Amino acid sequence: MLLHCPDRQGIINDVTRFITDNRGNIVYLDQYVDTIESRLFMRIEWDLEAFLIPRDSIEEYIRTMIARKYEMEFKIYFSDVRPRMAIFVSKMSHCIYDLLARYKAGEWDVDIPCIVSNHEDLRFIGEQFDIPYYVFPVEKDHSNAAEVEKAEMELLARENVSFIVLARYMQIIGDNMIAAYPNHIINIHHSFLPAFIGAKPYHQAYQRGVKIIGATSHYVTAELDAGPIIEQDVVRISHKDTPESLVGKGRDLEKIVLSRAVTKHIERKILTYKNRTVIFN
Amino acid sequence: MLLHCPDRQGIINDVTRFITDNRGNIVYLDQYVDTIESRLFMRIEWDLEAFLIPRDSIEEYIRTMIARKYEMEFKIYFSDVRPRMAIFVSKMSHCIYDLLARYKAGEWDVDIPCIVSNHEDLRFIGEQFDIPYYVFPVEKDHSNAAEVEKAEMELLARENVSFIVLARYMQIIGDNMIAAYPNHIINIHHSFLPAFIGAKPYHQAYQRGVKIIGATSHYVTAELDAGPIIEQDVVRISHKDTPESLVGKGRDLEKIVLSRAVTKHIERKILTYKNRTVIFN
Amino acid sequence: MLLHCPDRQGIINDVTRFITDNRGNIVYLDQYVDTIESRLFMRIEWDLEAFLIPRDSIEEYIRTMIARKYEMEFKIYFSDVRPRMAIFVSKMSHCIYDLLARYKAGEWDVDIPCIVSNHEDLRFIGEQFDIPYYVFPVEKDHSNAAEVEKAEMELLARENVSFIVLARYMQIIGDNMIAAYPNHIINIHHSFLPAFIGAKPYHQAYQRGVKIIGATSHYVTAELDAGPIIEQDVVRISHKDTPESLVGKGRDLEKIVLSRAVTKHIERKILTYKNRTVIFN
Amino acid sequence: MLLHCPDRQGIINDVTRFITDNRGNIVYLDQYVDTIESRLFMRIEWDLEAFLIPRDSIEEYIRTMIARKYEMEFKIYFSDVRPRMAIFVSKMSHCIYDLLARYKAGEWDVDIPCIVSNHEDLRFIGEQFDIPYYVFPVEKDHSNAAEVEKAEMELLARENVSFIVLARYMQIIGDNMIAAYPNHIINIHHSFLPAFIGAKPYHQAYQRGVKIIGATSHYVTAELDAGPIIEQDVVRISHKDTPESLVGKGRDLEKIVLSRAVTKHIERKILTYKNRTVIFN
Repeated sequence: MLLHCPDRQGIINDVTRFITDNRGNIVYLDQYVDTIESRLFMRIEWDLEAFLIPRDSIEEYIRTMIARKYEMEFKIYFSDVRPRMAIFVSKMSHCIYDLLARYKAGEWDVDIPCIVSNHEDLRFIGEQFDIPYYVFPVEKDHSNAAEVEKAEMELLARENVSFIVLARYMQIIGDNMIAAYPNHIINIHHSFLPAFIGAKPYHQAYQRGVKIIGATSHYVTAELDAGPIIEQDVVRISHKDTPESLVGKGRDLEKIVLSRAVTKHIERKILTYKNRTVIFN
Repeated sequence: MLLHCPDRQGIINDVTRFITDNRGNIVYLDQYVDTIESRLFMRIEWDLEAFLIPRDSIEEYIRTMIARKYEMEFKIYFSDVRPRMAIFVSKMSHCIYDLLARYKAGEWDVDIPCIVSNHEDLRFIGEQFDIPYYVFPVEKDHSNAAEVEKAEMELLARENVSFIVLARYMQIIGDNMIAAYPNHIINIHHSFLPAFIGAKPYHQAYQRGVKIIGATSHYVTAELDAGPIIEQDVVRISHKDTPESLVGKGRDLEKIVLSRAVTKHIERKILTYKNRTVIFN
Repeated sequence: MLLHCPDRQGIINDVTRFITDNRGNIVYLDQYVDTIESRLFMRIEWDLEAFLIPRDSIEEYIRTMIARKYEMEFKIYFSDVRPRMAIFVSKMSHCIYDLLARYKAGEWDVDIPCIVSNHEDLRFIGEQFDIPYYVFPVEKDHSNAAEVEKAEMELLARENVSFIVLARYMQIIGDNMIAAYPNHIINIHHSFLPAFIGAKPYHQAYQRGVKIIGATSHYVTAELDAGPIIEQDVVRISHKDTPESLVGKGRDLEKIVLSRAVTKHIERKILTYKNRTVIFN
Repeated sequence: MLLHCPDRQGIINDVTRFITDNRGNIVYLDQYVDTIESRLFMRIEWDLEAFLIPRDSIEEYIRTMIARKYEMEFKIYFSDVRPRMAIFVSKMSHCIYDLLARYKAGEWDVDIPCIVSNHEDLRFIGEQFDIPYYVFPVEKDHSNAAEVEKAEMELLARENVSFIVLARYMQIIGDNMIAAYPNHIINIHHSFLPAFIGAKPYHQAYQRGVKIIGATSHYVTAELDAGPIIEQDVVRISHKDTPESLVGKGRDLEKIVLSRAVTKHIERKILTYKNRTVIFN
């Protein structure tokens, strides 16, 4: 269970007592109080084996007995329900290979029912890993953007997708899709946000003459490259780097930063509040 | 000697032959070709002991015999001439302490004839290290900015200052002073530029929810926080950090990044071209 | 209060209830369960203003009512009691300057009653900062080591020193002193421990051809360079570095790593168990 | 051409003049003088289009006209001859996936004629990427080690392999193979060498309580984990990490560090001298 609410005395006690009184064995508890927002964030995990409340009723009981009292927002996940992840790609393979290599190695408790692209280029990767690869070509003038979005959303619904990973997908995501998957679309931007928003960040970085470049993974919101940041990392460069060598060094950053963010998301360790993320570990 | 010029065949040969033919012993040579700008950057150091050309004529000889031929910009420094560095401060002591600790420990071949401030607060540091401390109070409305600049520039001229270090000096530097010390005023900005330009970058970073903060040392140009970057570094933060804790973590970054930039400047290892720095090591 | 004990259900409840039942207002609570050792570590801070139990009796009450039940080891600190820190130095000034600059800037809630050295070299720093500087020369053959240790310990006792910082103090600390200040002597070792234990680690690093060097701050125990690690950091180097340039780059690491460790110690955020540290933030 | 020799005046002149006099157009030149060993290291690349000396005779001409004079060791590579790389694996897939993803994306100018393993587990990866996968099972008591080495070396010879990458291959490489591929077998060790040599470095790191873990890529020599280091990197950990979570965090380090080393090797940017590497960029 992930929750957040205005910070008041007694919350932790109430929550833990509710669980232990009903014979739940707490196996993980982490909480954090944002003293500026005066808000408590909490992640608690317990064993359902001897739990007295039936699985289907847990959410209702918690809402009734705890959440209302504390104006709490909460979400319950069951560890035996694997999230279903869709990967969106364009032409670059480094991020999707990194995702699929982890998936195949069993690093993640996740299903990947489909890969979505606006190009045929990476179909062979879908075939290598035996994952259906769907192409929805987007016109250069974006005239068919609404149609494409509709078709993609039907596919995602049909495949029961719970979250989306944009693995260097070079298209703007439409507002309907963003609204349908709030804080469930993970993007990788190839700069140290908020520096170099938008197109060609490595060229921008070269022009500015920075000595370090970065990559940023964030949830997609309606405003471009402005959603809650999940993970960032950087690498040192020098005057010897060209825009091309930056692209090369950046690739390693991008895939690692994206995969770290996906890991946290799959493990349900991310809480989002007012465009900032709380990440438990 | 630091030089740069359009890249053509034969330059390195010509320069090294000029030195060795005149019995100079080359002790350091590093060069870098920017293939995008098609420009050669070079740093060469030689021993003057047996050098045939008198010290005072070297510059003229090089201009006549080499620089014109290659449209070369160059600068000659003598290692027995110590640069004279002025430190500008306001109220925060961490950067100036770091500078003076290195100076006192003999890490740098530099003289520090004066400390300049707009406040009395850090006069005790000048006294601790026996360095004259001058206060030029700036009015809140900046009405006396021109006067102050003039007085400061007179002091710098009188003290024969060769470069200026802004050690968290919280005032805008005037255009006259920038013009008088081109690429010789080193600032430390407390963010990973170009992110969070201007005031209160740590608060901006907190608002944006970044996972890494940085500091940037750069030469001061007429455009705010936009001069050639010399050095940057970063430190990882988390959702637990407040603007206040960022200020604390940032202090360590700022002083190290500034001192690294000053080191490179004192060692004459920085070349600047089109708002980017080439830094030899 | 810092505590650790075997992990059992109910501990957090019991501790927090004890405090709130007695009208203590909890302002900080962080806990961590080491699942391998099956041990709970906890840091809890509360406001004494309305607390029913008199300050002098708190320790006894907790021992009687909670600690015995849970086989708990605990320590209580009062935030209005400033720890008293002694600094030991030899000839290098970078670490002590960094410590004193923070002290002078008011970054730390600490008193520094004395500086101890085996050399006269840095007496001027004691004078700059108005802190008594004591020299206890150690013979090259260490023949007077026992005497020196005794004299130093008398000084520390007289000055009511609560912990010691070895700011590049180039002498082995005697067993009596280590026994008297268990996990209260902080050393900085100029390598990434456990690599390059012992003398001249930068020369060892050069010989081995590593691409990164580090610094390690740890509590001093009887075994050389083997105590619980508090903080480490690294910096990238290259084949161009000589042992001398490594010494230079290492200095920046050493002082920052040492000061970070001292910060955590002063804030009582470090728990030690079986040669490993738990560090709250 | 990569070369190194005792440092003497005139070498760079002689080499560059030899090339330009014979109408070679120099496109890359980097040199480095190790002042401690008094040895010059140089990497020079030139265009053969108009070069007067026939390709097959270049080596002989350089040996005769330059190398002898300066006691130079040198090696010539032609950029149109792609090195042939063999990958050795055991059961872990993260490193080989990273290598093959780069290969498939065309990042490297290299051929991969074979994958060698002591286990069947990763045969599916060979099939995914259409690369022959050979299994040479090693007995637990290593009784067949000599035979296996012989068979592997025959395969490598038949496939004309120029260098070997151990992508978490969990077997000791025999002396014959090391002798046959001096500084041409690249290993990834999952620690920050020289810390935690040998087996289970993450467990060793956990036991020691370090705050940072690393990975090291190095050339294999007869002494275990003691060969010339090519690349290292680190990641910060905390007391919350278990040996298992270290293994997870380490995987990302390992693959990136190994691939960076392989990149440098393929680009012929590594020179080795006395167990240290000089790496051009």
